[in-house]
Amino acid sequence: MSIIEKINCSNDVKDLSRDELELLCSELRKFEIESIAKTGGHLASNLGTVELTVALHRVYDSSVDRIVFDVGHQCYTHKIITGRREAFSTLRQYGGLSGFPKPREAVDDAFIAGHASNSVSVALGMARARTLNGENYSVVALIGDGALTGGLAFEGLSNAAASGEPMVIILNNNNMSINENVGGTSRLLQMLRMRPGYISFKKWYRALFKKDSLMYKLSHSFKEWLKSWMLPDNIFSEMGLEYLGPIDGHNLDSLEKAIALAKDMQEPVLVHVITKKGKGCSYAETHPDKYHGVGSFDAETGVLAASDISFSDKLGEYLCQYAEDDRRIVAITAAMAGGTGIECFSVKYPDRFFDTGIAEGHAAAMAAGMAKQGLIPVFAVYSTFLQRSYDMLIHDVALQRLHAVFCVDRAGLVGSDGETHHGVFDVSFLSSVPGMTILAPASFQELHDMLAYALHDIEGPVAVRYPRCGEGAYKDSLVAAESVLREGSEITIVCYGTLVNEVLEAADKLEARGISAQVLKLGMLRPNEFGLCLESLRKTGRLLVAEEVCQSGCVGEALVAAAVTEGIELKAVRLLNLGSGIVSHGKVSELLEEKGLDAAGIADKAQELCGSGIKQ
Amino acid sequence: MSIIEKINCSNDVKDLSRDELELLCSELRKFEIESIAKTGGHLASNLGTVELTVALHRVYDSSVDRIVFDVGHQCYTHKIITGRREAFSTLRQYGGLSGFPKPREAVDDAFIAGHASNSVSVALGMARARTLNGENYSVVALIGDGALTGGLAFEGLSNAAASGEPMVIILNNNNMSINENVGGTSRLLQMLRMRPGYISFKKWYRALFKKDSLMYKLSHSFKEWLKSWMLPDNIFSEMGLEYLGPIDGHNLDSLEKAIALAKDMQEPVLVHVITKKGKGCSYAETHPDKYHGVGSFDAETGVLAASDISFSDKLGEYLCQYAEDDRRIVAITAAMAGGTGIECFSVKYPDRFFDTGIAEGHAAAMAAGMAKQGLIPVFAVYSTFLQRSYDMLIHDVALQRLHAVFCVDRAGLVGSDGETHHGVFDVSFLSSVPGMTILAPASFQELHDMLAYALHDIEGPVAVRYPRCGEGAYKDSLVAAESVLREGSEITIVCYGTLVNEVLEAADKLEARGISAQVLKLGMLRPNEFGLCLESLRKTGRLLVAEEVCQSGCVGEALVAAAVTEGIELKAVRLLNLGSGIVSHGKVSELLEEKGLDAAGIADKAQELCGSGIKQ
Repeated sequence: MSIIEKINCSNDVKDLSRDELELLCSELRKFEIESIAKTGGHLASNLGTVELTVALHRVYDSSVDRIVFDVGHQCYTHKIITGRREAFSTLRQYGGLSGFPKPREAVDDAFIAGHASNSVSVALGMARARTLNGENYSVVALIGDGALTGGLAFEGLSNAAASGEPMVIILNNNNMSINENVGGTSRLLQMLRMRPGYISFKKWYRALFKKDSLMYKLSHSFKEWLKSWMLPDNIFSEMGLEYLGPIDGHNLDSLEKAIALAKDMQEPVLVHVITKKGKGCSYAETHPDKYHGVGSFDAETGVLAASDISFSDKLGEYLCQYAEDDRRIVAITAAMAGGTGIECFSVKYPDRFFDTGIAEGHAAAMAAGMAKQGLIPVFAVYSTFLQRSYDMLIHDVALQRLHAVFCVDRAGLVGSDGETHHGVFDVSFLSSVPGMTILAPASFQELHDMLAYALHDIEGPVAVRYPRCGEGAYKDSLVAAESVLREGSEITIVCYGTLVNEVLEAADKLEARGISAQVLKLGMLRPNEFGLCLESLRKTGRLLVAEEVCQSGCVGEALVAAAVTEGIELKAVRLLNLGSGIVSHGKVSELLEEKGLDAAGIADKAQELCGSGIKQ
Repeated sequence: MSIIEKINCSNDVKDLSRDELELLCSELRKFEIESIAKTGGHLASNLGTVELTVALHRVYDSSVDRIVFDVGHQCYTHKIITGRREAFSTLRQYGGLSGFPKPREAVDDAFIAGHASNSVSVALGMARARTLNGENYSVVALIGDGALTGGLAFEGLSNAAASGEPMVIILNNNNMSINENVGGTSRLLQMLRMRPGYISFKKWYRALFKKDSLMYKLSHSFKEWLKSWMLPDNIFSEMGLEYLGPIDGHNLDSLEKAIALAKDMQEPVLVHVITKKGKGCSYAETHPDKYHGVGSFDAETGVLAASDISFSDKLGEYLCQYAEDDRRIVAITAAMAGGTGIECFSVKYPDRFFDTGIAEGHAAAMAAGMAKQGLIPVFAVYSTFLQRSYDMLIHDVALQRLHAVFCVDRAGLVGSDGETHHGVFDVSFLSSVPGMTILAPASFQELHDMLAYALHDIEGPVAVRYPRCGEGAYKDSLVAAESVLREGSEITIVCYGTLVNEVLEAADKLEARGISAQVLKLGMLRPNEFGLCLESLRKTGRLLVAEEVCQSGCVGEALVAAAVTEGIELKAVRLLNLGSGIVSHGKVSELLEEKGLDAAGIADKAQELCGSGIKQ
């Protein structure tokens, strides 16, 4: 029996010998590579944190202590250790394990994760709750150096440092990108801090001098002066966090000692760990970015299954074209050049390409400053991460009607990343932004044409939203607020984006059932007078609006409001959408079916409306 | 003729002698105190930045150079210097000068301001535009130490430091709260950096060693080592910003020299300025918080005009009451303990009170962590600033249905602070948050009762929204999703919050005109089945929804969608609200009148609907 099969909780890890631990780590790596090769998922970050996760489970008990993952795609080892090894073949699949921590999946998952930079804030909240409730579990945040660029992390660190709350922040630094100063002074710091007697000395020192006494203050000043003379400060110690590190993130002994020491210190401590993304897997070590998030691949060679051309690929291509002729166009990304398809822009126009790191608020505010001074900034960003910029969209961009272009990628359902990543709120929140134009291309050609329209023909802020996938059967380009895709007389079906493919198929089904549906595609979601839709409604009196977004603030609500304000009599109406917006993970096609937004579901609902006369 | 009367632009300031400048500063102070005493406004922050603003205009020309104010309530001296002295008596009044920078008011106002921490991002965007466009104006951000706690400022500083863009960031430190290290090493740093020959040495040094040469690298390392040995780093220099300071913010000479030097350095430079809030006005110096934002007062004595009891006052009172019996209740503020009325909580329950500084994203995420571990966190926050937490509300709070309470102050129109501060988007964005309950008390007693309901009877996230003002004639408490306030047969008028007062008055007017209006008050905006509203609509067939919020995602849209889905025939509908949500400054009553949301406007619109049959 292999070691990995004996592990079902933190305590099982605690029982292992040093040799068994090493073996466990190599078994975990092998298991993860083979499993992810089949299901797809996040490879490099999980391989990089095997020892770190094992060490965490040596020191903590995740069923009681609270381990808060930041972003959370590095939680695989944790899931395998905590009883989910056998379910691991269902990872990221419909009805299967989530690729991110999910408290509903196991008590060991302390908190939801998916968006970056929140872990310190969440952990501080938990630590404060623990202390106020007089409980005694430990709280740990595990944050990567990428997530550290987010302002939210700074807010959390700053508040945590001042709090005095016993909590441990593990900084998983996997590319040494943070701070030269830390790098330069690391060896000395590590030697001094990690001396075996350090923690006992610290305890004795504290016991000797009570915190408010003059003796403490004098000796503290002397200690601080000595420390600052010997050890240059870094940003963390300046904030007031105790700093331990850097620690070799693939040395189990060092990790366990450092984490145990940090836990014992009973104050806010940052443990700085250096790991290597993709560790132990040659192709993932060599190309950690390529193997960050992957579909299926050959476990032996690393050869990835071919992927289809996506809207993101096309965005990069088209944007480069337009930038050729218009030097005012600049591209902005928040650490997602690859994902949003604009890496090519960074190669072709390096001076006009700006990667802010994970800092969506800053990216939007900076875009506003650029627009004010005559550039045409294009911020390519995932829909779900643009939620971080909501205030800047209103305050910095919209109140002055500045012309900034937001290319909203991963709009609608994203599939296997699930509920934290679906782009199902953007239509709602973007619609509330004053003067925002929202364009929704349904084909690559429409993306091409609408992007040109957004860049050069629209005043004020404009969003172009498109899905994670590629295009479907619909390949036309109709750059208009509304277009009639199919004539009909009994029911009006309104839709936009690639959902037109499902709707057109539904209309075929309806025709076969003897029902004549008029299909309208919206190219511009806001502003929209809905002239053609209202005309159609005057004829049919029945409306179905199909949308891959949450209901509140959806286009359907606006269209209905326009119709009744115009005094149009409606016999039957159904707003078919994602309701509250919480949708699990799985293939997009499976999720659409679950929500009744596939062709069959749409056809059935339309038929119901037509059969019902007044009441559905 | 006094000096102040001769000043109409930056260049006029440049022509003055040293003595005249000192005189100008004292005239500016006198003018501001006397003027603000009449109009109300931001006193202490403006008195603290008189010399700093004059120095900025000595070095820069605001008609060409871009001075980006952070928050912007400290812009009065700037407005007076740039030709708006005579209009100053109209400050913050309907149709008059804005209390914040407004590009539409003058070319000298480089950018809009109102929300904190965005200035560095905006200025960086402007600097990059300037450089890419080959222009040669200067860009300056003016940010206070309070705004520096916002993560957005950290994102901006971090990106600015890496950019190498010539730009100057003035850190206006008015309470020495930032960083002990900066304070401790300040004198040495100031002496060294401000030596007359420093900048010429720096220029010579750079010219001698080209940046990529081995010589440069060696000597640079030596210089850096020497600097780090002599001058402890601070957070800014670690990020890579050139640091100048601290500078006495009331010494014109030092200020002008430091700012001119920073401008000449042609790289990202942070100038650290120490000012005293309320400077030169005894009562404002002594109580800078009390005289931060004020109504009218006696210029001689500082005695403030009495202010009415507000919903904020009551929130603090009630929250303290409930916290007495339930130790799980904790209060959170983002640097707004006074404004949100929960200062009393900090006195009564210091251990359960958490001020995060200006960090709304962190506050919401921390609340989520607290809620997950069994506390009942109450985050009291202005509606417009809660926009910063939008992503955390969805991701950290709502996806796990955590029970956190958001007391949304300044909901609806706020009056004289104007467009950057109106709380007119919260109904829209909160409605899109999965599972969010939104309560809208219309009286103090309702706030009392609904707060209890929010704390103890609701699962998941809940927002209680209330306006800046006090209560009106309506003083009942009806804690229900819907309540019929007045029976009627010809039109259904739906409203919530203190707008019920205008609507009830409108119903009286309508009665006098022979029109019978049924008035419904919504206590719970979401979720709401609208049972009573639909019942009323079945009877009247006419609907007017009056709301002090933007249209997209408003309650009216949801209600109309519910009505048509139910197949109710609507003869005439009007959603009466603030449209795009951009509303200027002035008294709330004036703004309501402008938007047709006062009693007269509502009555007229209702009458129109009743007269129109089908079409309005």
